[in-house]
Amino acid sequence: MKFKVSAELGYEIKAPSTLVINIHALRTAHQNVIEETLSTPSYIKTEQLTDVNGENRFMRLEVPEPCTISIKYDALVDNYYEVRNHKDVAEIPVAKFAPSVLPYLNPSRYCQSDKLYRLASNTFGKIGSSFEQVFAITDWIHKNVEYLSGFTNSETSAYDTVTQQAGVCRDFAHLGIALCRALTIPARYFTGYAYQLQPPDFHACFEAYLGGDWVLFDATRLIPLNGLVKIATSRDAADASIASMFGDVTPTITKASCQYADETPFKPIYYTRSIFDGVTYF
Amino acid sequence: MKFKVSAELGYEIKAPSTLVINIHALRTAHQNVIEETLSTPSYIKTEQLTDVNGENRFMRLEVPEPCTISIKYDALVDNYYEVRNHKDVAEIPVAKFAPSVLPYLNPSRYCQSDKLYRLASNTFGKIGSSFEQVFAITDWIHKNVEYLSGFTNSETSAYDTVTQQAGVCRDFAHLGIALCRALTIPARYFTGYAYQLQPPDFHACFEAYLGGDWVLFDATRLIPLNGLVKIATSRDAADASIASMFGDVTPTITKASCQYADETPFKPIYYTRSIFDGVTYF
Amino acid sequence: MKFKVSAELGYEIKAPSTLVINIHALRTAHQNVIEETLSTPSYIKTEQLTDVNGENRFMRLEVPEPCTISIKYDALVDNYYEVRNHKDVAEIPVAKFAPSVLPYLNPSRYCQSDKLYRLASNTFGKIGSSFEQVFAITDWIHKNVEYLSGFTNSETSAYDTVTQQAGVCRDFAHLGIALCRALTIPARYFTGYAYQLQPPDFHACFEAYLGGDWVLFDATRLIPLNGLVKIATSRDAADASIASMFGDVTPTITKASCQYADETPFKPIYYTRSIFDGVTYF
Amino acid sequence: MKFKVSAELGYEIKAPSTLVINIHALRTAHQNVIEETLSTPSYIKTEQLTDVNGENRFMRLEVPEPCTISIKYDALVDNYYEVRNHKDVAEIPVAKFAPSVLPYLNPSRYCQSDKLYRLASNTFGKIGSSFEQVFAITDWIHKNVEYLSGFTNSETSAYDTVTQQAGVCRDFAHLGIALCRALTIPARYFTGYAYQLQPPDFHACFEAYLGGDWVLFDATRLIPLNGLVKIATSRDAADASIASMFGDVTPTITKASCQYADETPFKPIYYTRSIFDGVTYF
Repeated sequence: MKFKVSAELGYEIKAPSTLVINIHALRTAHQNVIEETLSTPSYIKTEQLTDVNGENRFMRLEVPEPCTISIKYDALVDNYYEVRNHKDVAEIPVAKFAPSVLPYLNPSRYCQSDKLYRLASNTFGKIGSSFEQVFAITDWIHKNVEYLSGFTNSETSAYDTVTQQAGVCRDFAHLGIALCRALTIPARYFTGYAYQLQPPDFHACFEAYLGGDWVLFDATRLIPLNGLVKIATSRDAADASIASMFGDVTPTITKASCQYADETPFKPIYYTRSIFDGVTYF
Repeated sequence: MKFKVSAELGYEIKAPSTLVINIHALRTAHQNVIEETLSTPSYIKTEQLTDVNGENRFMRLEVPEPCTISIKYDALVDNYYEVRNHKDVAEIPVAKFAPSVLPYLNPSRYCQSDKLYRLASNTFGKIGSSFEQVFAITDWIHKNVEYLSGFTNSETSAYDTVTQQAGVCRDFAHLGIALCRALTIPARYFTGYAYQLQPPDFHACFEAYLGGDWVLFDATRLIPLNGLVKIATSRDAADASIASMFGDVTPTITKASCQYADETPFKPIYYTRSIFDGVTYF
Repeated sequence: MKFKVSAELGYEIKAPSTLVINIHALRTAHQNVIEETLSTPSYIKTEQLTDVNGENRFMRLEVPEPCTISIKYDALVDNYYEVRNHKDVAEIPVAKFAPSVLPYLNPSRYCQSDKLYRLASNTFGKIGSSFEQVFAITDWIHKNVEYLSGFTNSETSAYDTVTQQAGVCRDFAHLGIALCRALTIPARYFTGYAYQLQPPDFHACFEAYLGGDWVLFDATRLIPLNGLVKIATSRDAADASIASMFGDVTPTITKASCQYADETPFKPIYYTRSIFDGVTYF
Repeated sequence: MKFKVSAELGYEIKAPSTLVINIHALRTAHQNVIEETLSTPSYIKTEQLTDVNGENRFMRLEVPEPCTISIKYDALVDNYYEVRNHKDVAEIPVAKFAPSVLPYLNPSRYCQSDKLYRLASNTFGKIGSSFEQVFAITDWIHKNVEYLSGFTNSETSAYDTVTQQAGVCRDFAHLGIALCRALTIPARYFTGYAYQLQPPDFHACFEAYLGGDWVLFDATRLIPLNGLVKIATSRDAADASIASMFGDVTPTITKASCQYADETPFKPIYYTRSIFDGVTYF
């Protein structure tokens, strides 16, 4: 499926600074970036980097002097996902996880799974399969956590949200991840462009490792599960923030949008409890 | 320099379980593991893994049934470190950090640098070079944080320790890392075997990225800086715990020791404020 | 009902110090302290005080020099409680609370009700009457929080316990209080001697203000509700700790016991969900 | 000294609600409220209450139905304070504190002194007298905590502020109180109207119990110490919030102002380190 995505970031910069920007659609075997353009002021040195795993890519911008800058990104992306029925998929035990999966069991900055063992076990521990546990976690978050802009900030973590029960997509994702890891289900953060998100913005949700697939879950239920263009997956938002700023930098604009650009009509996939369908972006 | 290191871990296991163990001396171009033996009960399936960066190596043990197990590790390691004077070493700006270094600027589970910006800036921000800042951080921790066994636990983080001001080597390391990152100095957790540590145990300290080197700092000042055999470096203890346990597992024994095994006499290197000497294990 | 209570506190004191001790059975119109003795070393100056509300009474001890002391308290108390059916008791709105009740709606050190509004409302908000809400809170705590000695410490608060889900009687009480206040139900901490508590110790539970009575609840369910001798009620443990120590003081002994001393057989009252019975110590 | 104070509070009320309002100038032997008027809509039932100590007074408003209300308060107050030199004032030990003073040593919701013992002791423990310690605390806060509107919220406590180092007058006061109590110096929260505060608003600072007086300290240094009209003193903001709202209430207006109304010119008193002058409002 083709999507046209675009982003705009603006900054007020008062001293020589460095920015690390995570807004590029990821290039994978199953997400083809057909064309993309990034426009930045010519006096800014930009550099495209890939992270240590060779997967996520991001831009580093060196701003030599005070200025006001605008960064624009546009891409046409051909995306691929699979829907798999997990009802009879065999669970993979920890003893069989690939080494690359194991870190997603560890607690991280915003997902303190180590502090949530008893709560996760008391609340979700008796539910049948891992798939059903993640489904129940997603349901619980959707039901109990209020989507509320401005309630949380960049320091808010799953440990806060599980009690305070309000936040934005990032907080929903962190809580989902933390609860999964507390149940020994690997989980990771997913950021991307989201079709039909209102108001348009960058979006965050999470993936749980189930039966050998990274299955997408979104406790906000704000978008269809198959309307996402992946920017990055990571331990949590600490490793995939839209922008990391080093210097005297004030963000002024953060915009993102996602339009459907395929000929065939878009058929949204939503959560359905009765069916064990899992959406995976390979 | 040669060291003979050994470890013993014991567990009471009440149901089929999986253990991930981080006790092997790391093999690097400058740390030669001359010989090593790991002894585990024969009915336990063991597997040696390397992490996603191909650096740290660890063991996964599959325990099929309830039992009491003991794991023993012995190794003879030839170690190499360099002492470099950092007085006139040029600082490297964020804009020049290799991509592999950048993640060590991000906050992590036990090192919430994002919550310590103002404190770090108010307390250490006006100190001259990055090297001197890290030295001052290490000094401050040594002076203000009391080494106190049993005060903290596996959930304790730098955010707690900066205020509560008591803990063990792990807590000292986490606080050092968090304060460095808050000042835009990459920092990482270092676990190893430590010569002359009393009582003998595994040890943790931290490395700061200064002038292109990962320089070792130890705010506990319990050991000479050149008496360490590296097990792992990582974001923080979440990624390098001695043992991660999945299942019904209770640790019963945790022992580690480190003996000097070289012919030439050991010449300890301690902290010296006046000299800008940094110890690096390459 | 008559109870014989006794307590022993021991301290290692290394410098001139002051202790404030809360172990006396409270004297009220309905709790008659028939006889009591407090024995302390003769060189220690003791003073009996009553708090600002003229209700709780406590001892202040001035220890002039280093020593090891033992404080013993014995009392025979005639106690009175009432069981009232709250099914048809009219609820009292905030607008009618006496001024002395209002502070028990405020958050306090260990009962951060302000941080639990959404959680309390999402979990208990739709339950019928205030009495049933408190009953459901007590049930939920009993079911989800594990009684575990040594897991928590004197800094642990309701905000911790609601997530960590383990603790001792003090933590159970604080969580109950915090959840009540978050639902606009006044609640206070209750410490006392508890009959049939195993192992014998001081006990803590809580009272909720319902229909004009302070009704006793105990989420630990370790004792019959009618086996308590009140020492103090307060905002939380911060105001009613067994001992506050000022100086270089290390507690060495903390013992308490409670024996039934009446002729008529003791008829224990336990929780019964179906009946709206509330036990109140006037 | 005479001050003319006024306040305006506005609320959007969507269901029958109760408000408890703390805006009246306190009436004491040394603060004479010469005249005051409170205007509220006639259909709202208002009731003036005094707290359990018979000191603070506050209003309870019963709003029977949805509405938009505005509450206005105006008063002419004749105020009295004393400046006392504390250089040679004998310190009072805990053993001599009146029972009414003791609760101000306990930790409270926003002043978790129990978590700050080591920090307070390490940072201020070696400073000479209690007066000088409180002065040093006030200095330290003024120097390290940035006055920043909107950074904190009603859940922010001293434990947060000591690390995050930003906040408003309320946060400055809570931190001062917590650090004092951690050093066994009783301290309490003070809210009032403040002359020359820019922009005009309610103000909060704190009092420390030194040599038998409650001495005023204000780490914000935004106002002269002798320009305050007391509304309330309390454990912390939990007990003296401007407004406690029970029901579906949204605050829309919060205004306060304070004008000098005396014939003699106002002579401001500011902090002076060299002199041990303490301002006390009796």
